[in-house]
Amino acid sequence: MASSLLMSRRDLDFLLHDWLGVERLVERERYAEHDRETFDAVLDLAEQLATEHFAPLNREADTHEPHVGEDGRVVQPASVKAALAAYTASGLPTSVFDAELGGMQLPFVVHQAASSWFQAASIGAFAYPFLAEGNANLLATYGTPEQVATYAEPVVAGRWYGTMALSEPQAGSSLGDITTRAVRQDDGSYRVTGTKMWISGGDHELAENIVHLVLAKTPDAAPGTKGISLFIVPKWLPADDGSVGERNDVALVGLNHKMGYRATTNTLLNFGEGLATPGGRAGAVGHLVGEEGRGLTYMFHMMNEARVSVGAGAMALGYTGYLHSLEYARVRTQGRPLDRKDPTTPPVALVEHADVRRMLLAQKSYVEGALALVLFCAHLVDESRTHPDADAAREAEQLLSLLTPIAKSWPSQWCLAANDLAIQVHGGYGYTRDHPVEQLYRDNRLNPIHEGTHGIQALDLLGRKVVEGGGRSLGVLGARIATTVEAARAAGGEPAAYASALGGTWDELVRVTGVLWEKGDPALALANATAYLEAFGHVVVAWLWLEQLVAVGSAQGRFPDGKRAAARYFYAVELPRTGPVLALLASLDTTTLDLDPDVL
Amino acid sequence: MASSLLMSRRDLDFLLHDWLGVERLVERERYAEHDRETFDAVLDLAEQLATEHFAPLNREADTHEPHVGEDGRVVQPASVKAALAAYTASGLPTSVFDAELGGMQLPFVVHQAASSWFQAASIGAFAYPFLAEGNANLLATYGTPEQVATYAEPVVAGRWYGTMALSEPQAGSSLGDITTRAVRQDDGSYRVTGTKMWISGGDHELAENIVHLVLAKTPDAAPGTKGISLFIVPKWLPADDGSVGERNDVALVGLNHKMGYRATTNTLLNFGEGLATPGGRAGAVGHLVGEEGRGLTYMFHMMNEARVSVGAGAMALGYTGYLHSLEYARVRTQGRPLDRKDPTTPPVALVEHADVRRMLLAQKSYVEGALALVLFCAHLVDESRTHPDADAAREAEQLLSLLTPIAKSWPSQWCLAANDLAIQVHGGYGYTRDHPVEQLYRDNRLNPIHEGTHGIQALDLLGRKVVEGGGRSLGVLGARIATTVEAARAAGGEPAAYASALGGTWDELVRVTGVLWEKGDPALALANATAYLEAFGHVVVAWLWLEQLVAVGSAQGRFPDGKRAAARYFYAVELPRTGPVLALLASLDTTTLDLDPDVL
Repeated sequence: MASSLLMSRRDLDFLLHDWLGVERLVERERYAEHDRETFDAVLDLAEQLATEHFAPLNREADTHEPHVGEDGRVVQPASVKAALAAYTASGLPTSVFDAELGGMQLPFVVHQAASSWFQAASIGAFAYPFLAEGNANLLATYGTPEQVATYAEPVVAGRWYGTMALSEPQAGSSLGDITTRAVRQDDGSYRVTGTKMWISGGDHELAENIVHLVLAKTPDAAPGTKGISLFIVPKWLPADDGSVGERNDVALVGLNHKMGYRATTNTLLNFGEGLATPGGRAGAVGHLVGEEGRGLTYMFHMMNEARVSVGAGAMALGYTGYLHSLEYARVRTQGRPLDRKDPTTPPVALVEHADVRRMLLAQKSYVEGALALVLFCAHLVDESRTHPDADAAREAEQLLSLLTPIAKSWPSQWCLAANDLAIQVHGGYGYTRDHPVEQLYRDNRLNPIHEGTHGIQALDLLGRKVVEGGGRSLGVLGARIATTVEAARAAGGEPAAYASALGGTWDELVRVTGVLWEKGDPALALANATAYLEAFGHVVVAWLWLEQLVAVGSAQGRFPDGKRAAARYFYAVELPRTGPVLALLASLDTTTLDLDPDVL
Repeated sequence: MASSLLMSRRDLDFLLHDWLGVERLVERERYAEHDRETFDAVLDLAEQLATEHFAPLNREADTHEPHVGEDGRVVQPASVKAALAAYTASGLPTSVFDAELGGMQLPFVVHQAASSWFQAASIGAFAYPFLAEGNANLLATYGTPEQVATYAEPVVAGRWYGTMALSEPQAGSSLGDITTRAVRQDDGSYRVTGTKMWISGGDHELAENIVHLVLAKTPDAAPGTKGISLFIVPKWLPADDGSVGERNDVALVGLNHKMGYRATTNTLLNFGEGLATPGGRAGAVGHLVGEEGRGLTYMFHMMNEARVSVGAGAMALGYTGYLHSLEYARVRTQGRPLDRKDPTTPPVALVEHADVRRMLLAQKSYVEGALALVLFCAHLVDESRTHPDADAAREAEQLLSLLTPIAKSWPSQWCLAANDLAIQVHGGYGYTRDHPVEQLYRDNRLNPIHEGTHGIQALDLLGRKVVEGGGRSLGVLGARIATTVEAARAAGGEPAAYASALGGTWDELVRVTGVLWEKGDPALALANATAYLEAFGHVVVAWLWLEQLVAVGSAQGRFPDGKRAAARYFYAVELPRTGPVLALLASLDTTTLDLDPDVL
């Protein structure tokens, strides 16, 4: 297959097989039907579909933003629907689901690797199946058998799509303040009324139906997050035969006009306030999932996977931007190297300039580091679900929980930085819509915002994850890092030098964590939580670069040499950035905590 | 006047008067007609015009991108032309020009401060007068009296606009490789043929004529930059009575479709290859400016001011984004502080969250630091031109030359970072086109690219500016910094502590500069030039924050407290970032220099 500018299959194979050894997963009962060949076939299929159906529509879907037609329906380019139909026809929507739901029971890590092709090709179009998967996954876990059959199975099959309807105009990061109401009816169903904001895929004509999973409060609910319940609210009420029946009282109020990510409709939805409903129902018909008051718990149980996938999307945008700018830098000529300025000599390729190589190598260190991070976390999802040793499974779950805010935030920050560099490599051309990199930059800017902002990830990491169980998860990660450090020391040379740097920085990070919490004052401990998140992320990715170096071993050739170069860059330029950040944290700096906002 | 979300007049007044003491400039003959009142009146006028005419069109001009109509003319919203007409009618286009050209002879620093209102309101629309000013300035300096009368005076008056036509499709950063040809005719004029790319304001219907200043090579020119000459090539040939005569052979080939900055047309132009020219001339009619072969020298003589103004534009975009996000953070409520989580209490304003205050304070430290930087440099322009002491004037010129790459690159990097934070403060709303911050972010992304990319600024600083005259300019800056450090030490308290940090970092920067050039190997010295540029910029802005602290003195109140808080942030968070960067430079790291591009 010709080399692609979406993702690197070579890198995916290296990480999945040479590093993570995902083939060993087929020893587990859940994955026993699979082998390396089926994994490879899925990746081949993903690359082919992404290249042929998704990549070609990406610019069109950006230029022709969704709008509401005169009939009130959402209008989008036909290419989006056609690509999604091809995806559905391929069977890939069923990848991670149980066989009894019609699923392939693929490992999550293989599915994540396959999805990265689509995220790189058109993150906006791929958001529909991505959201549907999370939706069906949640229902498959917490729904009744009837709910699963009625609502999850059509989504798994790719006939329906689904949303997560959490935010409201006045409540985004603070979900405890939602005001959407759900009132129980005599027949056990609920009537839902309220307004939901930022609902991705909240309306469209891409599927027969849309299953909204809606957070709402019952009339006697406790204040705050403990009063939140979760409801199934379909756009169309299913008829008894499983087909689509009459319209539920869910109305599209408006589409948000975004900087990027435009293939995905993003909506303001009214529940129970929009349409005149047949039968005079007051509110949209909803069905409780699980128990009242546990809505956020259910939602957050799916959050690890959702957030890892958001990080994967950011990574994929960064990865394809890197490959495009690398290609451009090899083809485009400009100027001469600094030690050969003779203007009568022909200009050289951009890649001959050290500063351009810097911009490429930085991108490589970010996007390949991010890919290692998201695949590692995706593999932890599989380990936590299927490891035969209960302790090992629990440890994987703890590690996943700790690393989730990193997997979400680090690629969102640094693969956006990669897109910035990809533009810069292109010069003025990169600022135009004639090259894909400007769209990637706009698309990627969403990722630090949705599924929990950067700041929320920081509070999750420092306020919750590192302190849970007396720092148990931190200990698990520390043990893993120590193992890598030991292996790298044994390898000698550069890996050994990096091992010392990593070990020292990790020890300092752990010490700083203790200092921050010494007084048990959350406001003080969390005052610089974002700085902590960012330093922690850099340490984790430095560790994963060392892991990759160890996996590369003494192999010769361009690919291993590329890994060595990127690791060298990360240890020379990136890891040292954490020094002043950790020092700031250790000093318990209160510059922003004590700041009187009136002086701003 | 009601508080504006464009710029802060309070801050401008503080920097212009309390800090720089620009009123003293009226003691110079050139500015003798002025006083504080005329300076104030210009700033009042700028704020009013920018608020009433430019700010309201900014989103419309973004949404309705320029396009070519059926008649081949450029179509833009009428509001752009109307705003520019109001600007022309105000007389502001004449600000910096000599009285004999119809100019106001305002100090450049006052003009720059006034311009910042327009750059904040609509950087795209203001680009036309901005480009015209540079164009007329160059002609006024190097043109013959006849050229000045024919081409510069209509531009000064605001009737015509002008461009700088340097780049070509194959030659952007590497101007020595341009291929546009100019052939001398018997009448002393030239015929220009070639294609120019990225020409901002290269075509439009906003003025009676467009004066292109075109870099081209004569047939027998030397290779490289030494063979470049500068030509006046008007869109319409002036008639003998000074009116617009017949069309010159300059054709619009296409408009570039940009990520932002859309009110400014950006064009691909053909000279001498587009239209059938009356009289059968082969090529566009051009007139040589000055002498053959000196084109780039003339162009670069204007470069300091142009680059400072680009930095000012980046600053203004950052500044207005900061003010918008501050306003939003004061009005929008969400969640509760970390030490008061009770969900029955009402939500608080965003600004009550420490992490939001961090994002605001970081922006403040970037945008106010950048404003100080660009005004300091603009003041150096005035000092270098008018200081009665020849040594002092020369010193100002040296300092300006040294600081120009910083004034261009630092705001382009960090005020874009400010725009990124302004979006983040807004959450999802910041990602939509319903709030101005998303456009600011897109507009600002141009600034690290045009007028010399970030990497080119780095080569200019480390490869030329710091080594010129054996490091003479570096010595001048060092002496200024030493004076500030001394004053801050005398002040005691926080300023004294920052003085130590600044002094130490400056000494290290100077030492590192020596280490880099020790072997006299440009490729080695410049291998990490961008890292050097970025560290140098942070040190300079840290210095200017200390300058501001010293100027604030012991004043009490919100404004001085705000300056103290931003300075505290810069010294706590930002200056320490230079530590690992200087260490990298000192190690003569060759990671990117030695990198084999084939392994990427």
